[in-house]
Amino acid sequence: MIGRPLSALKQRAAVEAGQTTPARLLAKAGEAIAALDGELKAFVALAPDASVAAAARAEGPLAGIALGVKDIYDTADMPTQYGSTLYRGHRPAADASLVAMARAKGAAILGKTATTEFASIDPAETVNPHDVARTPGGSSSGSAAAVAAGLVAGAFGTQTAGSIVRPAAFCGVAGYKPSFRLLPTIGVKCFSWSLDTAGLFAASVADVAFLAAAITGRELAVAPLADASGLRIGLYRSALDARLEPEMAAAREEAGRLLESAGASLVDVEEPEALSAALAAQPDVQDFEAAHALFHERMVGEAQLKPGVAAILRRGATITPQAYDAARSLARRGRKAATALFGDLDALLLPSAFGVAPLGLASTGDAAMSRVWTLAGTPGVNVPGFAASNGMPLGLSIVTRFGRDREALLVADLLERLAARR
Amino acid sequence: MIGRPLSALKQRAAVEAGQTTPARLLAKAGEAIAALDGELKAFVALAPDASVAAAARAEGPLAGIALGVKDIYDTADMPTQYGSTLYRGHRPAADASLVAMARAKGAAILGKTATTEFASIDPAETVNPHDVARTPGGSSSGSAAAVAAGLVAGAFGTQTAGSIVRPAAFCGVAGYKPSFRLLPTIGVKCFSWSLDTAGLFAASVADVAFLAAAITGRELAVAPLADASGLRIGLYRSALDARLEPEMAAAREEAGRLLESAGASLVDVEEPEALSAALAAQPDVQDFEAAHALFHERMVGEAQLKPGVAAILRRGATITPQAYDAARSLARRGRKAATALFGDLDALLLPSAFGVAPLGLASTGDAAMSRVWTLAGTPGVNVPGFAASNGMPLGLSIVTRFGRDREALLVADLLERLAARR
Repeated sequence: MIGRPLSALKQRAAVEAGQTTPARLLAKAGEAIAALDGELKAFVALAPDASVAAAARAEGPLAGIALGVKDIYDTADMPTQYGSTLYRGHRPAADASLVAMARAKGAAILGKTATTEFASIDPAETVNPHDVARTPGGSSSGSAAAVAAGLVAGAFGTQTAGSIVRPAAFCGVAGYKPSFRLLPTIGVKCFSWSLDTAGLFAASVADVAFLAAAITGRELAVAPLADASGLRIGLYRSALDARLEPEMAAAREEAGRLLESAGASLVDVEEPEALSAALAAQPDVQDFEAAHALFHERMVGEAQLKPGVAAILRRGATITPQAYDAARSLARRGRKAATALFGDLDALLLPSAFGVAPLGLASTGDAAMSRVWTLAGTPGVNVPGFAASNGMPLGLSIVTRFGRDREALLVADLLERLAARR
Repeated sequence: MIGRPLSALKQRAAVEAGQTTPARLLAKAGEAIAALDGELKAFVALAPDASVAAAARAEGPLAGIALGVKDIYDTADMPTQYGSTLYRGHRPAADASLVAMARAKGAAILGKTATTEFASIDPAETVNPHDVARTPGGSSSGSAAAVAAGLVAGAFGTQTAGSIVRPAAFCGVAGYKPSFRLLPTIGVKCFSWSLDTAGLFAASVADVAFLAAAITGRELAVAPLADASGLRIGLYRSALDARLEPEMAAAREEAGRLLESAGASLVDVEEPEALSAALAAQPDVQDFEAAHALFHERMVGEAQLKPGVAAILRRGATITPQAYDAARSLARRGRKAATALFGDLDALLLPSAFGVAPLGLASTGDAAMSRVWTLAGTPGVNVPGFAASNGMPLGLSIVTRFGRDREALLVADLLERLAARR
């Protein structure tokens, strides 16, 4: 294991209690990056000294909190290369909205984290801190790994299919994919404008809720649930379950039992037909939009693109507007079906991935378990604290109705605490 | 009058018939800009010679078609300054998607057109080609004026409230605001992510449909309607009608009679309560999003902003997430009410503005007539060809159900032809 996660909430409490200072916290984060990132390869650029010094003097609820930022978010004080040789040395004129919002609350942006090219599927160099022979997941590879190794207390990522929930699961940290557009994506390189969703990583669910609340001013981090009484939780079953690793299937059942023993009623929920259809339509939505979002890059530099993203863009360019419209229509129906699913349910419980982080660095793993929920725009939280017999993390997801982000974070936080108490 | 509009369709036909060449068309456009733009002030940057030379050799359906691009669209070969001193000399790394898409079809991007700062309300320097003492409208001021004066055959604009339809009306050209997100906004500076809509200006409705079809590959420019038989057209009435200039009210009635005499049935349509409520909520959606989209700019350069946009951003920063969510919820209900409105109607007919372009350059005029339709995401087309007794253009709008862009263009084209035949 490379490093271990650091709690943003505990850091905040220590600053408030006068036990440490923002400057000391940032110095320690810098030391951890210097010591560990040579092996982890989570960062692709580090903040200039002047930015760190300014952040050490900053005030606000996030003073002293070190953040990593996926390198598809623009930063005015650091290169922003989108994981692509097409943007070598590129330096944006402005910070992405979320970067500016975090700085305004006192946070220190310590560096840019590794991303697959344009947040697509070709792996970055980052390794999994739990086992350097395994992928950290992607596309937010560096953000998940940096938080898991404690190089930073939090990190920004994005999810178009499964790029927050999956790396959070593989690296054993909390990953929060908010309701679509709850966090602004302005200044974040676009892959698919109707799917790209900005989100956050932190050590625990309570930490990620604290960061999201501080950055947005939303009431996301309120009184934790004492127990699960009165909650109706759906155990979501779909055709994809056939591909679950046995230990992941068992972890889901165990998580269900933990919630049940805390007072929740469990209901088996079968995937509605409209959601299966939406999932099947997802690639046409994503790839058509990617081919248009990256039209300039296709025109000027297709030969320089990595093979995975190049193939997606080539396919996207063959999708007709009519086929795209039909896929969007299925996606809309899927969103309605997702809303209907929550008619008498508070939350769904489902695996964040098929199992532990796969061996090898040639793939970032499979986004299949998350893809339909990103399309649905529903909030989802990866809950850390479960593990396979080989010690690798197993991630479970709590998903709620669109707009019910606080509820997703509360149930996920409860499940994490129940798992810790076992 | 400065110049007169040029038909993209006629230019295309002349190229196909061998009567001219793309190079000659572009040379003439360059001459027109050199001769007229000193007074018109539609352009803020012109394409480098190398770009024009490359475009003169380009192939495709838009070869020889000169376009202007609102200066909130990124261009890799020209400065992109968003109408703001904060971005003096700024040069993006990539073309906006629509710029790249138009170039790929052979179009020549001849320059960047004047915009209000960040496409907000502080006027640019452009004058109205019909009367230099009057505003061309905004925020797409330069695009509308450049097309009206025939400096280019088409131009890109954006509309967050009324920034395509209004300047098109004031300058007497066709303006097409598509269904929300039909045209990608990637690489276009964001003001409000749930409202900003990319669109086009051209001499006539048929011209703008031709350009949109060529750029997107959509079937938007198909066989024109022979008459209006079978069409049910709603004459939209709202509380805003009390502010219509008498000649605009008369133009609406005349347009209705023209469609009726061509076979349409006319129905009076009162504004549904849900749309009035959505209109009232619009500023909270727009201003909250603007304050977040331009968070970096507020942090680093608020003192440099022009007073109108500065006031909007200051107000936006005071809107709570709860108030924003409530406004979005009203907007969603408004969108549903707009869809319901088209249950038994093919299109709505309404004024594009309260009247002719107002005297003076201190304001770009009032966006009120368009604002709710941008919020609703419905396609809208400004139909040129009507005029007040002082010779200034009066614009009428055809609005259809979300996704029915072709129908909006077909009805607008018919109305334009009926008006020309009077």
